[in-house]
Amino acid sequence: MLRIPIEQVTETLTRALCRLEFEPDRAALGARLFAETTRDGVYSHGLNRFPRFVATIRNGCVDPRGRPECIAAQGVLERWHGHAGPGNLNAVQAMDRAIALAREHGVGAVAMAHTTHWMRGGSYGWQAAEAGMIGICWTNTMPNLPPWGSSEARLGNNPMVIAVPRAAGHVVLDMAMSQFSYGALASYRQRGELLPVDGGFDTEGRLTRDPAEIEKSWRPLPIGYWKGSGLSLVLDMMAAMLSGGRATHQVPADPLREAGVCQVFVAFDPSINDGAADMADRIVASLGVRYPGQQVLRIRAENLALGLPVDPALWDELQTI
Amino acid sequence: MLRIPIEQVTETLTRALCRLEFEPDRAALGARLFAETTRDGVYSHGLNRFPRFVATIRNGCVDPRGRPECIAAQGVLERWHGHAGPGNLNAVQAMDRAIALAREHGVGAVAMAHTTHWMRGGSYGWQAAEAGMIGICWTNTMPNLPPWGSSEARLGNNPMVIAVPRAAGHVVLDMAMSQFSYGALASYRQRGELLPVDGGFDTEGRLTRDPAEIEKSWRPLPIGYWKGSGLSLVLDMMAAMLSGGRATHQVPADPLREAGVCQVFVAFDPSINDGAADMADRIVASLGVRYPGQQVLRIRAENLALGLPVDPALWDELQTI
Repeated sequence: MLRIPIEQVTETLTRALCRLEFEPDRAALGARLFAETTRDGVYSHGLNRFPRFVATIRNGCVDPRGRPECIAAQGVLERWHGHAGPGNLNAVQAMDRAIALAREHGVGAVAMAHTTHWMRGGSYGWQAAEAGMIGICWTNTMPNLPPWGSSEARLGNNPMVIAVPRAAGHVVLDMAMSQFSYGALASYRQRGELLPVDGGFDTEGRLTRDPAEIEKSWRPLPIGYWKGSGLSLVLDMMAAMLSGGRATHQVPADPLREAGVCQVFVAFDPSINDGAADMADRIVASLGVRYPGQQVLRIRAENLALGLPVDPALWDELQTI
Repeated sequence: MLRIPIEQVTETLTRALCRLEFEPDRAALGARLFAETTRDGVYSHGLNRFPRFVATIRNGCVDPRGRPECIAAQGVLERWHGHAGPGNLNAVQAMDRAIALAREHGVGAVAMAHTTHWMRGGSYGWQAAEAGMIGICWTNTMPNLPPWGSSEARLGNNPMVIAVPRAAGHVVLDMAMSQFSYGALASYRQRGELLPVDGGFDTEGRLTRDPAEIEKSWRPLPIGYWKGSGLSLVLDMMAAMLSGGRATHQVPADPLREAGVCQVFVAFDPSINDGAADMADRIVASLGVRYPGQQVLRIRAENLALGLPVDPALWDELQTI
């Protein structure tokens, strides 16, 4: 594994995105988001994801010049059209808008239709927390998760992010509704490891801890069985109903054609309570175990000090995109 | 099991609450909420829960005359103080306020501190859905769930409700962050059944499907292991930070003294999208399996036709409270 300074990674990705017809400032932001995802240790959605992102630009699913647009507003709730723009750039803008609304009105919400894969959802949670806001966002996805009681993938794994600001380290939960995201399954498979708990069914309908079997069957387990199944359903309903976009069952079930998804971004301003920051520290102190996001700070520091870990073949590929 | 018409159950409970110093209109509302919970088949939190509710009034934890009060507002976000009023009455009022805010501003949110057990959380989801709103609410609880990686119950099972309105039957998800709520564990135990999947650890730290063992160890499993553990944590943080009330670790770990909890009620108005109702139907039609809340309509119809099922000893007890 190479170790490349984050600035150099970002420059390389920026150049690649410019060659793909991103405007320079948008190329720089997109590059930063990918680099920061790898910096934070979310390797499945950082640089390793870049070639697939490029493929979705080249096949026309993602329009590098597509910009999101507000098409309806009712008070602090807005509907946006993503115009098939890059999902990560669209998401940053949507969360920014939710934050601005929340700063003025306590809460702000943006429901965006017709956008594309947002890559690492946690990015927009960190974004909210850095702005001092509680941020909640989720996306629907292509059908890739069978509801509990069925073997057909009619739900999405619909990742959801909840971020709580905290001076000593934000608490950022970033989780798919499946026990293991497809990114996580791939990581376990590439490391040659079994899952620590049952993660889904094999093609014969038996529960298994073998990640490759679940990638084959497309039958991951929802978190908490029937509970995660229900949660995935209502997240899809809220996203599609509020945004006016496509529901999971209307999204093409092909990672390279997964487009037209919906996302919801909500921000809450905790400054309504003077004691909020103090309370965040007290709760984390009482927990006794690691909180979501804690690990990120350690990995981030390491990757900033040593350089981002990059596969040599991928690094070569990134130069030539 | 007796079968008593819902009107007669409601009258009996109303009389009992009046004798406990509820004002008549509040007694009637409280009685209706308990009766409707049993009507809907949530037996653990309906009539069967009434004696414990009475005990918390008699021991001073719940003040039958306590009324919630708005103590701070920032736009569509309000902080309320529950004044230790009956948790179910407080919750109805908070969700009503969130709905009113959402009707005007698209979204409304009430964070309530110093309230008491809300009984069946789903009631407030149905309330939002009946009003045509998407409703989200959650509560923190006393410490009753060990975070993943720990054997000490430092988190709450923090039930969360998400309700999506739909003319042909609202979709209402009502779930604790533990794989089985304590109410569900008790129901399985009373029926002499094992849990369908592992529900927690026994006192020796082994995973078990025996509900009684988990009631003894206080070590239920969070849904999705580390994921539900993280979700429970951020729900507690948001509730305590936004409301200014107690976090789970500050709530007495005794079901009869569980007071001062925090709750958050959020409503979103789906009328921002003309196609929302249609989309709700299409998603449900695409699912292929039962949706959360579907079962309720069948049980509700049966219990309205036959009368509510009531244990004879409990029915006698209710006459004399």
